[in-house]
Amino acid sequence: MSTSTRLKHLFPLAAQIRRYDSATLRGDLAAGLTTAIMLVPQAMAYAMLAGLDPIIGLYASTLPLATYALLGTSRQLAVGPVAMVSLLVASGVSALAGDDPGTYAALAAVLALLVGGMQLGMGVLRLGFLVRFLSHPVIAGFTSAAALIIGLSQLGHLLGVKIARSHHVHEILWAALRHLGEANLVTVGISAASIAALVVLKRLAPRFPRFLLVVVGGTLAVWGLGLDQLGVAIVGDVPPGLPGLSLPRIEPTQLGALIPVALTISLVGFMESISVAKNFARVHRYEIDADQELKALGIANLVGSLSGAYPVTGGFSRTAVNDQAGARTGVASLITAGVVALTLLFFTPLFYYLPRGVLAAIIMTAVFGLVDVSGARHLWRVSRPDLGLMGLTFLATLSLGIEQGIGVGVIASLLWFVWRTSRPHVAVLGRLPGSTVYRNVARHPEAAQTPGVLALRIDAPLFFANTAFLKATLDALESEEDHPLQHVVLDAKAIGSVDAQALDALEEIFDGYQHRGVSVWLAGVRGPVRDALHEAGLVELIGEDHLVERVHQAIDATGLAPIVRLVGG
Amino acid sequence: MSTSTRLKHLFPLAAQIRRYDSATLRGDLAAGLTTAIMLVPQAMAYAMLAGLDPIIGLYASTLPLATYALLGTSRQLAVGPVAMVSLLVASGVSALAGDDPGTYAALAAVLALLVGGMQLGMGVLRLGFLVRFLSHPVIAGFTSAAALIIGLSQLGHLLGVKIARSHHVHEILWAALRHLGEANLVTVGISAASIAALVVLKRLAPRFPRFLLVVVGGTLAVWGLGLDQLGVAIVGDVPPGLPGLSLPRIEPTQLGALIPVALTISLVGFMESISVAKNFARVHRYEIDADQELKALGIANLVGSLSGAYPVTGGFSRTAVNDQAGARTGVASLITAGVVALTLLFFTPLFYYLPRGVLAAIIMTAVFGLVDVSGARHLWRVSRPDLGLMGLTFLATLSLGIEQGIGVGVIASLLWFVWRTSRPHVAVLGRLPGSTVYRNVARHPEAAQTPGVLALRIDAPLFFANTAFLKATLDALESEEDHPLQHVVLDAKAIGSVDAQALDALEEIFDGYQHRGVSVWLAGVRGPVRDALHEAGLVELIGEDHLVERVHQAIDATGLAPIVRLVGG
Repeated sequence: MSTSTRLKHLFPLAAQIRRYDSATLRGDLAAGLTTAIMLVPQAMAYAMLAGLDPIIGLYASTLPLATYALLGTSRQLAVGPVAMVSLLVASGVSALAGDDPGTYAALAAVLALLVGGMQLGMGVLRLGFLVRFLSHPVIAGFTSAAALIIGLSQLGHLLGVKIARSHHVHEILWAALRHLGEANLVTVGISAASIAALVVLKRLAPRFPRFLLVVVGGTLAVWGLGLDQLGVAIVGDVPPGLPGLSLPRIEPTQLGALIPVALTISLVGFMESISVAKNFARVHRYEIDADQELKALGIANLVGSLSGAYPVTGGFSRTAVNDQAGARTGVASLITAGVVALTLLFFTPLFYYLPRGVLAAIIMTAVFGLVDVSGARHLWRVSRPDLGLMGLTFLATLSLGIEQGIGVGVIASLLWFVWRTSRPHVAVLGRLPGSTVYRNVARHPEAAQTPGVLALRIDAPLFFANTAFLKATLDALESEEDHPLQHVVLDAKAIGSVDAQALDALEEIFDGYQHRGVSVWLAGVRGPVRDALHEAGLVELIGEDHLVERVHQAIDATGLAPIVRLVGG
Repeated sequence: MSTSTRLKHLFPLAAQIRRYDSATLRGDLAAGLTTAIMLVPQAMAYAMLAGLDPIIGLYASTLPLATYALLGTSRQLAVGPVAMVSLLVASGVSALAGDDPGTYAALAAVLALLVGGMQLGMGVLRLGFLVRFLSHPVIAGFTSAAALIIGLSQLGHLLGVKIARSHHVHEILWAALRHLGEANLVTVGISAASIAALVVLKRLAPRFPRFLLVVVGGTLAVWGLGLDQLGVAIVGDVPPGLPGLSLPRIEPTQLGALIPVALTISLVGFMESISVAKNFARVHRYEIDADQELKALGIANLVGSLSGAYPVTGGFSRTAVNDQAGARTGVASLITAGVVALTLLFFTPLFYYLPRGVLAAIIMTAVFGLVDVSGARHLWRVSRPDLGLMGLTFLATLSLGIEQGIGVGVIASLLWFVWRTSRPHVAVLGRLPGSTVYRNVARHPEAAQTPGVLALRIDAPLFFANTAFLKATLDALESEEDHPLQHVVLDAKAIGSVDAQALDALEEIFDGYQHRGVSVWLAGVRGPVRDALHEAGLVELIGEDHLVERVHQAIDATGLAPIVRLVGG
C-alpha cells in the first residue's frame, strides 16, 4: 500500500477532499454553520435530558465531531448528542451517581470510554454484522417507547416543578399531576410559547432556524423582563473555555454496573448512525464501510471521554439539515465543531438567562415525532406477528426499563423466527392438468394426485427444531390417504440447509419407509444439501437414481398415473 | 364424551387393559418383578448420588411409579429415579441445604413439587413442543459432561474417603488424589470387585440380574466377615415402612432459588422420558401423547413430593429391561411399585450391611456409557458445526455448571441457526445446455448465463437478519458483471417465508432497480410468500406478468439469449 493509499484508508476524509474546490467549500461552509446553529441548543437540551449540565452537551459537540469527520466514511453524517443515547445515559448513570453532579458527569465520561472501547473493538473484530439482529419492528417499538419516556421526562422542566427522575411513564405522569398545583405559571407560559413556535415553524418553514429562535427569544424575554426573579429556572453560569483533556476517574465496582448499558449504547447508537449514514450514502451514491464506521464512532467516543463528554453518535435530524444545507464532505462537520468551540470560548455568558423550559420544549417536540404510529399501521397491513413484536418491545420498554426492553425485543424476535421455522409450511402437491407442473393442491384444487404416491414440499431449512414436526407431518399425511403408500416424493427445492439432527431424522424416516417397501424420491435437492445427504450416506440409502430434478420425473418413473379430481367434487 | 371414553382419556391405563388376558398378565408379572430387582439397588444408588439417604430413592419408586402407570400413555416406560435428574437435584439443592440431611430431604421434596407443578402446567398449556429446542448435539454434549461428573463424584465412595461435594471435574479429581493415601483398602477391594462383576456380566450375560448380585454379594461379605469393623462404609439403619403423606415445608426465599433448577429438571427429565417412550412406542406400534405424558409425569412428581420423594422421570435402561422382560401394559409398573412397597415394609433390615461402595459402583458403571464418543464421531463425519455445539455444551457444563451448561448449549444452537440463516447460500444460475433447466454456475461450469441478466437463487427464508446480506449480495453480483444490468431474475422456490422487514427490503431493492430501468422477475414464488408480496403491493410494483413459474420462462420473456461458456475457458 502506498503512503497516500494508506492515508486515505486511515483517514477517509483525505479521499473526500482529493478534488476540493470552491463550490464544495461553499456547500460545506453553509452546512457547517447551519448545523452548528441547530446543534448548540440541541446539544445543551440533550445533555439536560441525560441528567448532565448543558455544557457537557457542548463538550460532546467539539472533539468527537472533528474526530468523526476525519475518520468516518459518511460525508453528511452529523455526529453529536442524540436523544436516544442521552436517555440511555440517564437510565444507566442515575442509579449509580446519587445526587452529586460531579460523580454523575464522571460516570457519563466513563460510559463514553466504555462505549468507545466497545465500538472500536467491534470495528477491529468486524462485528458490525451484530446490528442485523436488531430487527426493524424491535427498533420501532423500542424507539416509540423511549420517545414517550423522553418526552414525558421533560414535564417537570416545562411546568417549572421538581419531580423525581423516573423511567416509568405512570410514575412521571402521576408525579406531574401531584405537583401540578405548584407549577410556575411564567415557566408554563414560556414552555407553551416555545412548543407552539417549534411546532408551527416546523410545519410552515421547516428550514427556518427555529431552535435558535426559541433560544434567543426565551433568553431575551427572561433577561429583559427579569423573569428569573419570578422563579423561572435558567441555565445559569456556564464555565467558559474549551474542555481540558484528562482520563475520567474509574472505579472498578462501577465499571461492572456500567457494562450492560455501555453495550446497549454501543449497539443502539451504531445502529442509528449506520442507518442514517447508509440512507444519505444511497442518495449521493457512495459507499459506507460499516466496520470503519464502528472504528470512527469508537475513537470519537474515546476522544470525547478524554474531554469530559458523554456518548455521541450520528443522528437523523441534524444529518438531514446538514445535507439540505449543502454538506459535501466531512469538512462541514469540522466547521460545525469549530463554531461550537468558538461558542465555548466566547459566548457561554449569553446562555446565562436561557430558560430550561425552552430546552425541554426542544426535546419534547423533537422526540414525539419518533412515536412510530405509521410504522405500526404499516405492520398491521403487512405482518401482524411483526406488529406483535413491535408492541411487545414497546410495552417491555415502558414497563421493564430501557435496556431490558430492547433485550426482550431481540430475544423475542429470534425465538419467533425459530418458532415459525420450526413449523414450516408444508404443501401436498398435485399435477396441474395438461402440464408437468406440480403445485399445492390446497391452492389448486384442479391439481391431480396419484394414488399410492405422497408428493409434498417443505418450505424451510431442516434443523433440530423442526425434525419432530417433519416426522409427525409425514405420518399424519399418510394416515389421511385412502390408498396404501408406495412412493413418497419430497420436493426439496425450498430446503436450503440441513443440520446433523435433520440428517439423523431423514435417515430414520427413509429407513422406516424402506422397511415397509415404500420408495423415497427427492426432487430438486440444492447443492449444499445434496453434499450433506451424500456425506451421511442417505443418497445410497434411497438410491442415486431417486434424486431427480423435478417432481414429475419421480412420479413418471413410478409408472403410476395421476387421477384428475373434479373441482368441488 | 361417554363416561368410559372420558375414563380412558383421563386414565390411559383403562384403555390398555381393555382386553387383558392371562398371557398379558404373565408378561407384565415377569417384567414387574425383573424391573423391581433392578430398581431397588439403582434407586438407592441414585438417591445417594443426589445427596439423599438411600431410602428416599425407594420412596421415589412407589407412588410416583403407580401414578405414572395409571396416567401415562407408554406401556413400557419405567419411571423412577434416574442418574441425570439425581445429579441436577444434587447441583440445585446442595448449595441451599448446608450440612443438615433433614433440610436436604425437605428441599428435594419441594423440588419435586415444583417440577411436578411445572410439568403439569406445561401439559395443560400444551407446551410439550418446548423440548424441540433442545437439539441432539446439545443433549449429547450435556449428557456426556454430566456422566463424567456423576461418575467421578462417586470416587469418594469407591475409595472409602470423604471428599467435598463438587461439580467440577478438576476439583473432584484433585480431592481424590490428595486423599488417595487415606483410602480404605477393603472398600477399594469391594468396589473393584463390584465394578469388575458389573462390567463383565453386562457384556457376557446382559439379562442376568447383576445389580442384585453385587448388592447381595457385597452385603453378605460385609455381614459374614464383619468388614464394617474395618471401616467399610455401609448403608446402616433404614427406617422400615411406607412413607407418610405430607406437604413439604416450603420457605419462600428458597423457592426462588430452586426455580431455575426445577425448570431444568422439568425439561431435561421430560426430554429423556419422551424420547424413551417414543422409541418403544415405535417398536410396538402405538402412539405417545406428549402433552398427556407431561401431565402424567407432573402428577407423578406431585404425588412423589407428598410422600417425601425427589424428582423422577422415565429412564432408558430400566425401560429396556422392562420391555425385554415382557411388559405389555402399565400393570407391569404397578407390580414393580408393589414389590418396592413390600421391600419398604419388610426387607429394609437386609440393607443394613450393604456397602456404599457397591452403590457407587452401580452408578459409575451405569453412567460412563453415557459419554457419547460415537455420537461425537458421527457428528465429525456429517456436521462439524454441530460437533462444535456438542463440544461447547460439554465444556460449558464441565466448567460453568450443570444448569448453565444446557443453557449455553440451547442459546448457542439457536444463535447458530439464526446466524447460518442470516448468510444464506446464494447461487448464480445458468442454463444447462440443450435444456430449460437453470442450475448453479459454480457447480455446473457448462451452464450458460445471459449477458445483461442476473439470475440467482437464495436458499433461505428472508427475515430481518438477512435483508442486509441480500442487498449486499445483489450489489456485489451486479458489480462483477461485464454488461450493464437489464433484468434481475430471482428464483424464489427456496424462500419459504418473508417477514415485514424482508418485504420492506424487497420494496427498496425493486424500487431501486425500477428507477434504473432494470426489470425484476420472480420465479416459483411459494403461496404464502406470494400472498405477502401481494399484501405489500410488491407484485404491482414489478408487474403481475413478472411472476413466473420457472426461471427459463422469465429469461425467454426478456428476449435475450444465453451465451454458452467454454468449460475451462
